[in-house]
Amino acid sequence: MTPHPKDAELRERARQVIPNGMYGHESVAALPTDFPQFFAKAEGAYLWDYDGNRYIDYMCAYGPNLLGYRNPVIEAAVSGQMDRGDTMTGPSEAMVILAEALVGMISHADWAMFCKNGSDATSMAMVVARAYRDRRKILVAKGTYHGASPWNTPNLKGITPEDRAHVIYFDYNDLDSARAAFREAGTDVAGVFATPFRHEIFADQFLPSAEYARGLRQLCDETDSLLIVDEIRAGFRLSRDCSWSIHDVEPDLSAWGKVLGNGYPISALLGSDKVRAAAGSIYATGSFWFSAVPMVAAIATLQLIRETDYLERMVAAAERLRTGIAAQAETYGIGIRQTGPAQMPQILFDGDDDLRLGAFWTGNAARLGAYLHPYHNMFLCAAMSDADIDNTLAITDEAFALLKKSLPGLPPHRIERLNQRLLVRKSA
Amino acid sequence: MTPHPKDAELRERARQVIPNGMYGHESVAALPTDFPQFFAKAEGAYLWDYDGNRYIDYMCAYGPNLLGYRNPVIEAAVSGQMDRGDTMTGPSEAMVILAEALVGMISHADWAMFCKNGSDATSMAMVVARAYRDRRKILVAKGTYHGASPWNTPNLKGITPEDRAHVIYFDYNDLDSARAAFREAGTDVAGVFATPFRHEIFADQFLPSAEYARGLRQLCDETDSLLIVDEIRAGFRLSRDCSWSIHDVEPDLSAWGKVLGNGYPISALLGSDKVRAAAGSIYATGSFWFSAVPMVAAIATLQLIRETDYLERMVAAAERLRTGIAAQAETYGIGIRQTGPAQMPQILFDGDDDLRLGAFWTGNAARLGAYLHPYHNMFLCAAMSDADIDNTLAITDEAFALLKKSLPGLPPHRIERLNQRLLVRKSA
Repeated sequence: MTPHPKDAELRERARQVIPNGMYGHESVAALPTDFPQFFAKAEGAYLWDYDGNRYIDYMCAYGPNLLGYRNPVIEAAVSGQMDRGDTMTGPSEAMVILAEALVGMISHADWAMFCKNGSDATSMAMVVARAYRDRRKILVAKGTYHGASPWNTPNLKGITPEDRAHVIYFDYNDLDSARAAFREAGTDVAGVFATPFRHEIFADQFLPSAEYARGLRQLCDETDSLLIVDEIRAGFRLSRDCSWSIHDVEPDLSAWGKVLGNGYPISALLGSDKVRAAAGSIYATGSFWFSAVPMVAAIATLQLIRETDYLERMVAAAERLRTGIAAQAETYGIGIRQTGPAQMPQILFDGDDDLRLGAFWTGNAARLGAYLHPYHNMFLCAAMSDADIDNTLAITDEAFALLKKSLPGLPPHRIERLNQRLLVRKSA
Repeated sequence: MTPHPKDAELRERARQVIPNGMYGHESVAALPTDFPQFFAKAEGAYLWDYDGNRYIDYMCAYGPNLLGYRNPVIEAAVSGQMDRGDTMTGPSEAMVILAEALVGMISHADWAMFCKNGSDATSMAMVVARAYRDRRKILVAKGTYHGASPWNTPNLKGITPEDRAHVIYFDYNDLDSARAAFREAGTDVAGVFATPFRHEIFADQFLPSAEYARGLRQLCDETDSLLIVDEIRAGFRLSRDCSWSIHDVEPDLSAWGKVLGNGYPISALLGSDKVRAAAGSIYATGSFWFSAVPMVAAIATLQLIRETDYLERMVAAAERLRTGIAAQAETYGIGIRQTGPAQMPQILFDGDDDLRLGAFWTGNAARLGAYLHPYHNMFLCAAMSDADIDNTLAITDEAFALLKKSLPGLPPHRIERLNQRLLVRKSA
């Protein structure tokens, strides 16, 4: 019997009218059956499925939920703007106020352009970088996710080699490899993409060295090319400024999304004065890029980022969780690796290449009310209290106990599907 | 003195923090100074600027406003969903209900995928078409706007030749030209893009012949390639089904946006069973593609499309406007061309290559409270009453009278800027 009859019914209906029943990063096709596909409600740090089960949510909508679902301060601001207007024939004053707020907060930024998807911001960064000195080559760390556009999607189906003809790959956190890529690009290097830290699926996370961050900055300066920091996934979870401010490195362009409106649909490209003319020379637009409501949500989100201790509270909760899980794993004698910043944790099991341990553990946690992820980095939010973390730890403890009991002869879990995704990933 | 001191102040602030002070299709840089850049409020068929002026809006947010800004039926549905959740870790049931609604309404559609921008839907159509038979060539009518992605943006700054290496251009509504493009693509043709009618800026609009529409369908059938209808701009303003249903032609894929949520941010790719596996083989996703609120808005929009006479009322209002303007132009002895469907009108003046007549006429209309456009097709909405049209006609009559008086020696209007845009356009 399915554990979620109403969710199962929705999935069956979805299979009729949506290819594979679902697509993209929110598809649960490769997750254990204890994960519901659909959600009826979200509030604070919690989700509810259609079968009445509540989950404390460690995916946070894959990032956007930074300050709690339906945060009352943001909802109040949004409600006022909805009474006035959203998508109109021109932007509202919120666009100016939001651009001013970002320029005031992000050290390197002198201007802002707004869009919808993370991919919009990274693709716009690529075009602006090429326009800057009329050059073509874009340097990208191998296997790094910068969106799902033809030039960067990890799945090559329907993609032509020309879509990435001018992309040169190098190894993340390896300055020699980056130098070789710059040499290969010669006088044609437009820009280099960087993520604040290494956060790829199926892999341990790690922070780059300060030397690497500063080295990329220097290579860009020497070649008059642009350093682009992709903050889509990590933005405002490491810092109230650009994430590489922790290394004293300022990019020329930075791409933001996900958390910017705490879930309202908005992304942004920020840049320094040096790049202003190039940004003004390209054509970039979208049907809903000028809508007022997500901008008002973003203004309220940024105000809470500036004026509250959201970051310190989130980090404290995250460390409480990490410490608790580490102790449990040790108690049960199960080897795990918790990597990356505690507030964007990746948890992988030792000797678990086919993810059967991770799938069993997260599947049971989901069944018990904690939505963790077996192979994608997770996200904490500022709405998580000590009590929420303690309740989560009670769940993970039970999941570890069940895993310990089942470990001898644990069957592979939907391994063919997971392997398929791994394969796709590796082809990129 | 500026006619809009508060708008001017916002523009000045915007110039500090946004490249050129604004970008994209909602920039008024090339419009007469009587057009405000920012809007404080929208309701029904009307907009208000920050200086307290009201405009009846014939741009409808460049399309999205189909049923009136802040339509009460749609707002009520949205409000209920906002209390439950919007951007979550999975979609809500609204995604299934919306896909079912579209499959029920659009003859050719057996499945749906949702995204945010119009460009998302057209780019996804391109990738799906290439995935369908692992072919590369995409056929596009010369000078047709299908979005602002590198493969199709009209501005070539920051774009490389490889971005459109496999795009082959032909002449719209010219079957011989289309046949030549198919021949050039040989066995490598993936799909052909078509717009329901010809709606480009700076040009008279026209409908294609039924023979052309059926001829494209036949060429696709003969080559096992896909016919893609781009409904982003025209969808649901010509028909309650796909626009080419008027020619008895069913595409394999259709791209929808703008009106789909009556202004809430959502777009969609629809397809037939034949293409389901190809659509399921690509990777497509976005941070906010699964959000519930725009889907609930779209469900309510589609219900109003199915169950009300919105289309007939909009067409009747549009014809009342067209007839009235034609009579006025004749009375004043001024030659104009009103082209395209009356509910998506383009109005251009005879002998007005530098648009000085159109700019003067629309500038005065804006000053008097009617937001028309000198070179982009306009959009009517179902919230426009006979009284609204009559009030508009009083405004256009006054604008014609002023134009008649000023015609001898009318100075060129910001012509350098307009020419710059024309030039960019022609380079595509």
